[in-house]
Amino acid sequence: MPDGGGSTPEPITRLIEAFHKLPGVGPKSAQRLAYHILRAPEQDARNLAAALVEVKQRIMFCSVCLNITESDPCSYCQDPRRDRSIICVVEQPLDIMALERAGGFRGLYHVLHGVLNPMDGIGPEDIHIRELLTRLQSGEVKEVIMATNPSLEGEATSMYIQRLIGPAGVKVTRLARGLPSGADLEYTDDVTLARALEGRQEL
Amino acid sequence: MPDGGGSTPEPITRLIEAFHKLPGVGPKSAQRLAYHILRAPEQDARNLAAALVEVKQRIMFCSVCLNITESDPCSYCQDPRRDRSIICVVEQPLDIMALERAGGFRGLYHVLHGVLNPMDGIGPEDIHIRELLTRLQSGEVKEVIMATNPSLEGEATSMYIQRLIGPAGVKVTRLARGLPSGADLEYTDDVTLARALEGRQEL
Repeated sequence: MPDGGGSTPEPITRLIEAFHKLPGVGPKSAQRLAYHILRAPEQDARNLAAALVEVKQRIMFCSVCLNITESDPCSYCQDPRRDRSIICVVEQPLDIMALERAGGFRGLYHVLHGVLNPMDGIGPEDIHIRELLTRLQSGEVKEVIMATNPSLEGEATSMYIQRLIGPAGVKVTRLARGLPSGADLEYTDDVTLARALEGRQEL
Repeated sequence: MPDGGGSTPEPITRLIEAFHKLPGVGPKSAQRLAYHILRAPEQDARNLAAALVEVKQRIMFCSVCLNITESDPCSYCQDPRRDRSIICVVEQPLDIMALERAGGFRGLYHVLHGVLNPMDGIGPEDIHIRELLTRLQSGEVKEVIMATNPSLEGEATSMYIQRLIGPAGVKVTRLARGLPSGADLEYTDDVTLARALEGRQEL
């Protein structure tokens, strides 16, 4: 070591770099995580390592709805008790979990794995819109619920897909906009409030 | 699956749990990290897994200074060009990296691996003070620089060690307190400013 041994041991450097590649983990956090691993029980490090490898080996994307799954088609697409006439379109698999936790939806899903975002160069071919259109060709589907995020990109993606599907005679709906449960009117942002007014419901 | 297949695949759950065990990673971040791994190149996941296992296999603590190392004693303790009459005491191995980056110190180190913190039940026996005292017995060491953090616990630890060492005739110093380089006097906190005044130097 020409600098008199002043460098970090190589395995640590490699671990710091690997942590740094994760989203939201800056160089400082990566260092802290690596040093945590050094002090943590060996079993914890091994568990994380094994889980990483296992996920890449065992998890795939459902060939029908593109949700993550261990068997293809996924358990939602295989389940005979779910309503095959409604498809709920989401941005990512995590959104399915949120909807399932909320309960109340018994149809099928479709995961876009992204939203249209011209600024980042993400066009219709980069997200799984074509697979959705293919699923609609059987005529079994009567309604598509757009459950993209209420963001600029989510709304634009929703509008884009609605225009593609609309002519085919399939009903396209989207999740209601309005006040979130437990909100405080005084602190609600203008856009939410304006939308809640627009979408007001008769009591 | 009795709930109609509404659950997350088990490998994903395990990965989320393993990420959640890391410091500063909450349940939401753990989910996001796990889904990132799903979409990331397989090599990235394998690299992180390999680095985790390698660190636990190859990294140990130096039997002299308790720094992390691949060979015992560590490269600092083995380096004949470093000044063996000065020991710089730090809280954790990351601090050594910071001091080496700053340059200017060519002595040896001693890592406490923590600070005294009675609130968390961390006493003198829980950090490596005894090993430091043992190192001083040879009489070779003339100065101990306390480089603990300028926090309540860091200062208390520094004072505690100074009282233990002082009678042995070893000079104990600590890093200077004052304005950080590039600071703006107007926005400097009171404690820092008070210490900068106290420790004012003749020009």
